[in-house]
Amino acid sequence: MSAVVEGGRTLLVILMGSPADRDHAAKVAATAARLGLTVETRIGSAHKTPRHVLEIIDHYEADPRPKVWVTIAGRSNALSAFVDAAVSAPVIACPPLAMAEDLWSSVRMPADVAPLVVLDPSNAALAAAKILAQHDGAIATRLAQYRAEQFGSVVRADADHHDGMAG
Amino acid sequence: MSAVVEGGRTLLVILMGSPADRDHAAKVAATAARLGLTVETRIGSAHKTPRHVLEIIDHYEADPRPKVWVTIAGRSNALSAFVDAAVSAPVIACPPLAMAEDLWSSVRMPADVAPLVVLDPSNAALAAAKILAQHDGAIATRLAQYRAEQFGSVVRADADHHDGMAG
Amino acid sequence: MSAVVEGGRTLLVILMGSPADRDHAAKVAATAARLGLTVETRIGSAHKTPRHVLEIIDHYEADPRPKVWVTIAGRSNALSAFVDAAVSAPVIACPPLAMAEDLWSSVRMPADVAPLVVLDPSNAALAAAKILAQHDGAIATRLAQYRAEQFGSVVRADADHHDGMAG
Amino acid sequence: MSAVVEGGRTLLVILMGSPADRDHAAKVAATAARLGLTVETRIGSAHKTPRHVLEIIDHYEADPRPKVWVTIAGRSNALSAFVDAAVSAPVIACPPLAMAEDLWSSVRMPADVAPLVVLDPSNAALAAAKILAQHDGAIATRLAQYRAEQFGSVVRADADHHDGMAG
Amino acid sequence: MSAVVEGGRTLLVILMGSPADRDHAAKVAATAARLGLTVETRIGSAHKTPRHVLEIIDHYEADPRPKVWVTIAGRSNALSAFVDAAVSAPVIACPPLAMAEDLWSSVRMPADVAPLVVLDPSNAALAAAKILAQHDGAIATRLAQYRAEQFGSVVRADADHHDGMAG
Amino acid sequence: MSAVVEGGRTLLVILMGSPADRDHAAKVAATAARLGLTVETRIGSAHKTPRHVLEIIDHYEADPRPKVWVTIAGRSNALSAFVDAAVSAPVIACPPLAMAEDLWSSVRMPADVAPLVVLDPSNAALAAAKILAQHDGAIATRLAQYRAEQFGSVVRADADHHDGMAG
Amino acid sequence: MSAVVEGGRTLLVILMGSPADRDHAAKVAATAARLGLTVETRIGSAHKTPRHVLEIIDHYEADPRPKVWVTIAGRSNALSAFVDAAVSAPVIACPPLAMAEDLWSSVRMPADVAPLVVLDPSNAALAAAKILAQHDGAIATRLAQYRAEQFGSVVRADADHHDGMAG
Amino acid sequence: MSAVVEGGRTLLVILMGSPADRDHAAKVAATAARLGLTVETRIGSAHKTPRHVLEIIDHYEADPRPKVWVTIAGRSNALSAFVDAAVSAPVIACPPLAMAEDLWSSVRMPADVAPLVVLDPSNAALAAAKILAQHDGAIATRLAQYRAEQFGSVVRADADHHDGMAG
Repeated sequence: MSAVVEGGRTLLVILMGSPADRDHAAKVAATAARLGLTVETRIGSAHKTPRHVLEIIDHYEADPRPKVWVTIAGRSNALSAFVDAAVSAPVIACPPLAMAEDLWSSVRMPADVAPLVVLDPSNAALAAAKILAQHDGAIATRLAQYRAEQFGSVVRADADHHDGMAG
Repeated sequence: MSAVVEGGRTLLVILMGSPADRDHAAKVAATAARLGLTVETRIGSAHKTPRHVLEIIDHYEADPRPKVWVTIAGRSNALSAFVDAAVSAPVIACPPLAMAEDLWSSVRMPADVAPLVVLDPSNAALAAAKILAQHDGAIATRLAQYRAEQFGSVVRADADHHDGMAG
Repeated sequence: MSAVVEGGRTLLVILMGSPADRDHAAKVAATAARLGLTVETRIGSAHKTPRHVLEIIDHYEADPRPKVWVTIAGRSNALSAFVDAAVSAPVIACPPLAMAEDLWSSVRMPADVAPLVVLDPSNAALAAAKILAQHDGAIATRLAQYRAEQFGSVVRADADHHDGMAG
Repeated sequence: MSAVVEGGRTLLVILMGSPADRDHAAKVAATAARLGLTVETRIGSAHKTPRHVLEIIDHYEADPRPKVWVTIAGRSNALSAFVDAAVSAPVIACPPLAMAEDLWSSVRMPADVAPLVVLDPSNAALAAAKILAQHDGAIATRLAQYRAEQFGSVVRADADHHDGMAG
Repeated sequence: MSAVVEGGRTLLVILMGSPADRDHAAKVAATAARLGLTVETRIGSAHKTPRHVLEIIDHYEADPRPKVWVTIAGRSNALSAFVDAAVSAPVIACPPLAMAEDLWSSVRMPADVAPLVVLDPSNAALAAAKILAQHDGAIATRLAQYRAEQFGSVVRADADHHDGMAG
Repeated sequence: MSAVVEGGRTLLVILMGSPADRDHAAKVAATAARLGLTVETRIGSAHKTPRHVLEIIDHYEADPRPKVWVTIAGRSNALSAFVDAAVSAPVIACPPLAMAEDLWSSVRMPADVAPLVVLDPSNAALAAAKILAQHDGAIATRLAQYRAEQFGSVVRADADHHDGMAG
Repeated sequence: MSAVVEGGRTLLVILMGSPADRDHAAKVAATAARLGLTVETRIGSAHKTPRHVLEIIDHYEADPRPKVWVTIAGRSNALSAFVDAAVSAPVIACPPLAMAEDLWSSVRMPADVAPLVVLDPSNAALAAAKILAQHDGAIATRLAQYRAEQFGSVVRADADHHDGMAG
Repeated sequence: MSAVVEGGRTLLVILMGSPADRDHAAKVAATAARLGLTVETRIGSAHKTPRHVLEIIDHYEADPRPKVWVTIAGRSNALSAFVDAAVSAPVIACPPLAMAEDLWSSVRMPADVAPLVVLDPSNAALAAAKILAQHDGAIATRLAQYRAEQFGSVVRADADHHDGMAG
């Protein structure tokens, strides 16, 4: 079974700057699938192939569904802001950091360009789901279940640990 | 006239960690108003008054409108993640940085907590508008006009500068 | 035999933000045990399960014994300040640093919230023992012996080294 | 009226590394006084006058009262660890940071030396009060009042702000 | 008299990301003029107006003269790499640094994109002149004179200083 | 077949500060060869053997061909600026960074010394090729082919990926 | 009266990289004069005028007196290592730091080049005096007096402060 | 045969803060031995055993030979400044850096305390030899030979490399 659900009422577009970002993108897609999002994954470089990226953007701008973009570009991240300025939907920048200094290229934005930065790729999918859940009750339900389960595991770990000690 | 529009179809909640964050919040609110967002501004500290913040959250969770939160907390930013984990809507962390190192408390999130970081307060409003515009065509229109105007000013500046040189 | 002594006149509460912090907590507990402290270990997240943490806090606030908390939370550390603001006893923040930048979320505190930062987990236990020793002569005795032994080993190493060279 | 209360049941010793640290020390002393702590302030350098510091330490070690030290030394902070290793009471390092890098000399401690780091000088007094309050109910009462007042001001600011908007 | 020489055998294109970079660009242009370079200054944003930047690039790619670009963009610098990937001539990135961390967005380049980083704006003009001097003997002569004069001033300062002391 | 082409119309001089920099230099040379550059590789230390470096410089200054230098020196990089100030041709500093802090010695240049910094060694060769291509049509042709191929691979990866998903 | 004593049995050579370093050099010279050192101050740039620096070095190498060099160069400090490798006497690097990152160019030395780093200019003179005092009893006496006075002032400040409080 | 020469006319005292610093100290001692220095190695902690360190210092202060100290202490380095303030001879701080931030505790010195920082342990021995060579012609001769050999190897590597290419 594919990790990607086709044909939903909303859309998550994951755009990688290079095929080398595939593993990072797969982590975003895995959590997105678990939360019931429809995902499409594309590759394009703001530096090297800007016209190709603009074509990708035109393609999805023509799609009327509510959308979120997740952009994945390591080193100096131009892709996230490039896409954010060109699309009407919100853009989540999820840069893989090879060194701590790489973060700054994702957050030091000029006026009027506003990608939303989330470092952990699974968390980027979660944030996208929060945005899209306001358009789709099925996502909202899955998201609430997922969070209840994850947060509950902390409380259960405390109880188990405590019982273990008392025993 | 107030800079804040009341009674819209969507809602932006700006939550400050302290009254000292008022100036930063005002910058978010100013751009939000320009883009036609309905804004409510609240104050609460995840560290000092968590029960009060949970009450604020309960209040807005009961409001059925599509929503975005912008959380503003300087120094060690616990507020953004605290709110993100407790609300169903997306949360934009917009921390005022007194020193560069302060950024890290806003981005180094644990699993399953995913505030969306935007540093510039005007840009935080813009990102919120992008999310809410997918629910409200009036915001979408204002946002498109605003961006066309801002981006166009770069092209005009190039033309003016060029003319000036040629003249 | 457990590394933890039950039923003392004072109490050290080690609170982890996640079960993943177990190894770090074990290092605190090991030195605490060696110094004769009574230790209880709990798990709770200020971000994900704040109400659960507040319940843990209520439980221990009702315990009249002199107490120290050691809070252990990696990445962005909200737990230490969250606990410090809610408990009457002193709180030692002992964050495991995955990257140097993580330190700042533990020290950049707002007004009136004052967790005490110690990086090395064994040292965190030692600092807790210094606080509790002022309530319990048995801890004071163990602590004095421990420190005399550790500090004396430096002087002995110098003597051994010197003798080795002279021989 | 002096900002320092003499003759209490517990003692806060503020030790500066240089007369130049006087302003920073005054901020610690001001909050300490407000919380009812008995304070003595001394000057000595671990680098330049270690024998003098050891004499100061001997003087206070002979005093049977429960105690906390606050050590204040800028640039490379040797004083806090030097004092911590020599005294039985807990030591709070409160270094004035002229540059962010200065923090590290206060936290990168060797084994078995465990000063407790708090950056804000008023917060250092608060942390000291938490430790000493477990020995002195009067301090506990003042501390609880102080914190209720400070934390309550956040909730009041939210209410005032809200009323202002509604009006 | 204009600080810019028109109509030369080679060309320096200074491209700013925003009109706000005008002062930084003026420093590049001032030294370039002193070294006899022909300079044209343009404005365009890789983030906000990429199609406009691509038009500017097409314009200059059609000009057969040997060329150097100096790109000036603060905060997250996408412009330098965007231009470098699109033009055949060398590109010197000369980013104004509002904070030290901003440097990294100019140097952490992906494979096959290679802007040349020079921080000081006057030095950026000097480096451009070195490249263009290999095409134009007049620039080579001016550059050699300029450097002889500047470097000689160090030797003269040593002599003057020495004489002053001896006198 | 050697990775280095002898006897071209232009010249790339790669100067290492130490034989230990050989692997880094080999990466520059490999891409330079692929782009058709004539390369000579030398070793000399600005710190330890400045007279030897000045002799190397005199040797190449006497060669009338258009030239680019690539200087490779780790830790504190004095070599790049030392060479830049002494040669008429442009100098590309390509420092191997053992730690992030090492970058700064390559970019914090005094007035009138202007090495051009490129971190990736393959990219340094590419930047050199861009400069030399303006003197040699054969290099220009190879460079255009190389870039078309590299940039095209991003677009092809997007197409392959998309087809795979559709299949 | 000059701040510089001529004609001593030992010599301190202060070498600035640029006339702009004059104020920093003056602070070294002022403390050196107070400690009775003979000082000569020179200007030369390792980057721009290496042959001139080598001539300065030859001049002082021919002087048989025990010597210490203090080298003062901001930004990327090549001068200290350049001089250290060329002279037989010890070299103290005393770089004025315009930003914290500048420190690294003074300490990240290659094998067999070993300038001695001291940041504070007055302290650089003190360290030089410690080295030269082993050749000249007059300097040793002045140095001992100076340090006794400075260190004693800390003890006196403690006494004055204490008396003031008791009064 | 021992790597340490006993009974010389000058003395290098290597003082480690902990037996864990033995490997770092051995690297200093190895180069010191190669350069003909007389070395004694001791262990003492400024934090934990200051009185023991003061006794070590008294022992060597009574020795009339010209001396250099090399102090080796990781993490927060108090030892170097503690020793520098207490001895008449120059002190070289040679801290092993477990993280880059550790450097700052060795260079951010207060007024009138001036340890000389050298990071590489072999270089620390070289710097000590430069200081002691001014008292002992045999060391001066060995040092000159060592440096001629090391620096010559760079020139020979260039020649070998060049011959290999020509062949």
